[in-house]
Amino acid sequence: MALLHVDFFSDVLGMCMQMDVILPQQTKGQIGMEGKGNKGKIPTLYLLHGMSDDHTIWQRRTSIERYVSDLGIAVVMPTTHLGWYTDMAWGNRYWTFISKELPEICRSFFANLSDRREDTFAAGLSMGGYGAMKLGLSASETFGMAASLSGGLDVATVSGWGKTEEEKRYWQSVFGDLDKVENGSNDLFAEAARLKESGKPLPKLYMWCGTEDFLYEQNVHMKEHLTKLGYELTYEESPGDHQWKYWDEKIQSVLEWIMKNRNN
Amino acid sequence: MALLHVDFFSDVLGMCMQMDVILPQQTKGQIGMEGKGNKGKIPTLYLLHGMSDDHTIWQRRTSIERYVSDLGIAVVMPTTHLGWYTDMAWGNRYWTFISKELPEICRSFFANLSDRREDTFAAGLSMGGYGAMKLGLSASETFGMAASLSGGLDVATVSGWGKTEEEKRYWQSVFGDLDKVENGSNDLFAEAARLKESGKPLPKLYMWCGTEDFLYEQNVHMKEHLTKLGYELTYEESPGDHQWKYWDEKIQSVLEWIMKNRNN
Amino acid sequence: MALLHVDFFSDVLGMCMQMDVILPQQTKGQIGMEGKGNKGKIPTLYLLHGMSDDHTIWQRRTSIERYVSDLGIAVVMPTTHLGWYTDMAWGNRYWTFISKELPEICRSFFANLSDRREDTFAAGLSMGGYGAMKLGLSASETFGMAASLSGGLDVATVSGWGKTEEEKRYWQSVFGDLDKVENGSNDLFAEAARLKESGKPLPKLYMWCGTEDFLYEQNVHMKEHLTKLGYELTYEESPGDHQWKYWDEKIQSVLEWIMKNRNN
Amino acid sequence: MALLHVDFFSDVLGMCMQMDVILPQQTKGQIGMEGKGNKGKIPTLYLLHGMSDDHTIWQRRTSIERYVSDLGIAVVMPTTHLGWYTDMAWGNRYWTFISKELPEICRSFFANLSDRREDTFAAGLSMGGYGAMKLGLSASETFGMAASLSGGLDVATVSGWGKTEEEKRYWQSVFGDLDKVENGSNDLFAEAARLKESGKPLPKLYMWCGTEDFLYEQNVHMKEHLTKLGYELTYEESPGDHQWKYWDEKIQSVLEWIMKNRNN
Repeated sequence: MALLHVDFFSDVLGMCMQMDVILPQQTKGQIGMEGKGNKGKIPTLYLLHGMSDDHTIWQRRTSIERYVSDLGIAVVMPTTHLGWYTDMAWGNRYWTFISKELPEICRSFFANLSDRREDTFAAGLSMGGYGAMKLGLSASETFGMAASLSGGLDVATVSGWGKTEEEKRYWQSVFGDLDKVENGSNDLFAEAARLKESGKPLPKLYMWCGTEDFLYEQNVHMKEHLTKLGYELTYEESPGDHQWKYWDEKIQSVLEWIMKNRNN
Repeated sequence: MALLHVDFFSDVLGMCMQMDVILPQQTKGQIGMEGKGNKGKIPTLYLLHGMSDDHTIWQRRTSIERYVSDLGIAVVMPTTHLGWYTDMAWGNRYWTFISKELPEICRSFFANLSDRREDTFAAGLSMGGYGAMKLGLSASETFGMAASLSGGLDVATVSGWGKTEEEKRYWQSVFGDLDKVENGSNDLFAEAARLKESGKPLPKLYMWCGTEDFLYEQNVHMKEHLTKLGYELTYEESPGDHQWKYWDEKIQSVLEWIMKNRNN
Repeated sequence: MALLHVDFFSDVLGMCMQMDVILPQQTKGQIGMEGKGNKGKIPTLYLLHGMSDDHTIWQRRTSIERYVSDLGIAVVMPTTHLGWYTDMAWGNRYWTFISKELPEICRSFFANLSDRREDTFAAGLSMGGYGAMKLGLSASETFGMAASLSGGLDVATVSGWGKTEEEKRYWQSVFGDLDKVENGSNDLFAEAARLKESGKPLPKLYMWCGTEDFLYEQNVHMKEHLTKLGYELTYEESPGDHQWKYWDEKIQSVLEWIMKNRNN
Repeated sequence: MALLHVDFFSDVLGMCMQMDVILPQQTKGQIGMEGKGNKGKIPTLYLLHGMSDDHTIWQRRTSIERYVSDLGIAVVMPTTHLGWYTDMAWGNRYWTFISKELPEICRSFFANLSDRREDTFAAGLSMGGYGAMKLGLSASETFGMAASLSGGLDVATVSGWGKTEEEKRYWQSVFGDLDKVENGSNDLFAEAARLKESGKPLPKLYMWCGTEDFLYEQNVHMKEHLTKLGYELTYEESPGDHQWKYWDEKIQSVLEWIMKNRNN
């Protein structure tokens, strides 16, 4: 495998950005690990960080490069800071960046990346779980599979999230009027229903949440919603709270799920 | 010299951040360049980026590491994204980060960095010129010298900067009510006057602007203001507009000015 | 925690080198992980790579930064390429670099790193297990504890390692005349005996090897040798061969062993 | 432009390696610099370091990324440590790596890089000037243009380069028997003659050397040799010795020469 620390420019955001990228590389001589290449078009996983983290975090908190070393896929790890993968009410247009500009940039730099939706996946933890599901539900023309680990999936409840004035103000900067999030374009429950009705191709979905996680109820709620709508959902839960030791383990389950389901 | 790409965490911002840092290193065997160490407490330059850029930009657009190689100083290159080195009205508390937390973090990681104001300098271009002057004028207890290249120094005029609604909204996210910037804590003209009156130690200041720069008038205005107030200001101007080829040249003048004036 | 990618110069090697460094950082707001600082002198682990790998590998193949996040220690990850942590017969003086120059450089850049041998540890896998044991046995004035995972510990057997002429030539470039390695300064068995006789302080030692590893016999041999000599050795073995999934697990045992035994 | 720090694996060298890569990127919003993309196959410059330096050095000592920002070309900056771009007598097979494996790896990771010899250039300083000329003269099927700045071009004189035994031994580790370098595959004078006779396509060549450089005589000698053989050579000299301030300037001349001559 190759690991690339990339400094590039985003015209959508109007600033220099960073991403970490893992590319498959066929190697013979690496000790303790096999490296498998891919001479065709390379399936790509967009792997998203949570709040407080950035583009480096999956690479630092897990062994993600090792986990994908024999899968022949690429992993793109971007940052959207604290932007919740939205076009912020007061702030940057991270949704446009992540759903449109970033895939174009990646396919331009690394021309072997597949541009088929069947080969384009999103996954993430917490805020990044929300982001991944949003890519699946609101950009399903680009992303064919999406996985959420401990996702913050029900942003319609955001008016209750901020305890202090400063926190409330932060949530407003992301989502605008907190009473109008429900049914808006950032509400995944509504987006799931709208996508289903639209007749467009649906993404395959995966969810995991720890049963002791403060986001557990949201996840159960989303599972029921998606099931009712008829989405192809793989749902898992197990003991655990909001910690990296679980995400290090469960990202391996996500990879297994992707490899098993991507072509059937 | 040593160049360090640093991933760290900011509690003030609540997120992972990056900075590039240059540390002096005594070397004998480097070809084509001398490396000079510093066994005492190391003077430190905080070098700030402009709009559209980030912590990597001085290192990528100039030969800054080479220019400081025989000076025995450290250079800290942080990012504050598009935040204008302010505690944003809607957004992150970049001013608190840059003026308080960052120097503490740097002195904690690199314990040989001097914590004397006489050894602590700020410089930057465009938005970063504003940031550097602000560190000199509004955090003069920490920063003893400040230099602006092509600085956007008169933010009291910000209500005229945005052409589109989106642009206006951006400026509001940074500065709040655009009609109340004047005389506020982000107004460098007002801060310069207040610092002068306070009786606190004043920073030594340096300014350069190209005569064809769209910010030239602001710079002339600031020069006159600072001169009238009695600041120790080195002012230079020469043909040029808003481009890196000038900043690559003029950062060398800034370094000369620092080395010449820092102990007298 | 902070992760630093460091470009520096080695006068001993006469070339630019890289290392990755983890520094403790006290943080409040990181989600999914605690960050613990250290305001005193910081204990330091020098963590060494194996053949085919480099300074990035522990950071890429394991979650080392997360594993040390609440321990208050620093981790220095250098590279010595394919040099077996020796002053090569034909090649670079990596032993002098790793045992002398590198600790000096690290303590100069990061002045809070402890310079006490009780606070200075070495660990590594395979070739790096050899390197770590060598730092413990041949530089015990600097390193108070050393740990080997799947270490290539018996280099006196090196004349049998090369199958092709090219391989033999490689081993000669590292160790010189292959028939004279035994009892020389690169022979850990001899170094262990010599250190014991010298009356100098002995390192605390840790070893793990998988029972299916091709280096298993060497490890058993070394265990018996060290035990006979009276070293304070913690020895573990378990099913496993020469793979990163074991080292990702066992580096956590090494850290536990260090934290438990470092002050008693 | 985009700057990529790449960690990859070389099967030829049997170890993890690094390179820095600059890719063209079309951008609208970068302040102080234009970014020009390239939607076709991208011409590529392999830019080589000198002794004591590595893959990071062009990026750190010059503004190379800025200089190529509007040219629509990629720049690959590899390292071969102290290996003189040779298959070392005692050491690594850097020549095979740089002339064969590296272009393949780059074209695999960045599939838009052109594989035409007319679009593939080499340049370097000092040892890297030797390496670049060697790529032009000994791998002219891959490299269509080559440029040397202050190149160490006459390695047939190497038996006189080492002052100490250690230095002599170093040169032997690179070139083998020092009395047999002349007319061998590392002797550029001989290679230039052999290539001319072979009837294969010849590279376009560029040389610059400072008139106060200790390598000046070698450069004059090479110029005369190439001219006599009928190579298409652009030769420049000017006051200067062996320093980065000259290479920062002259790499811009190299780029001009490439852009002007590459298609005619």
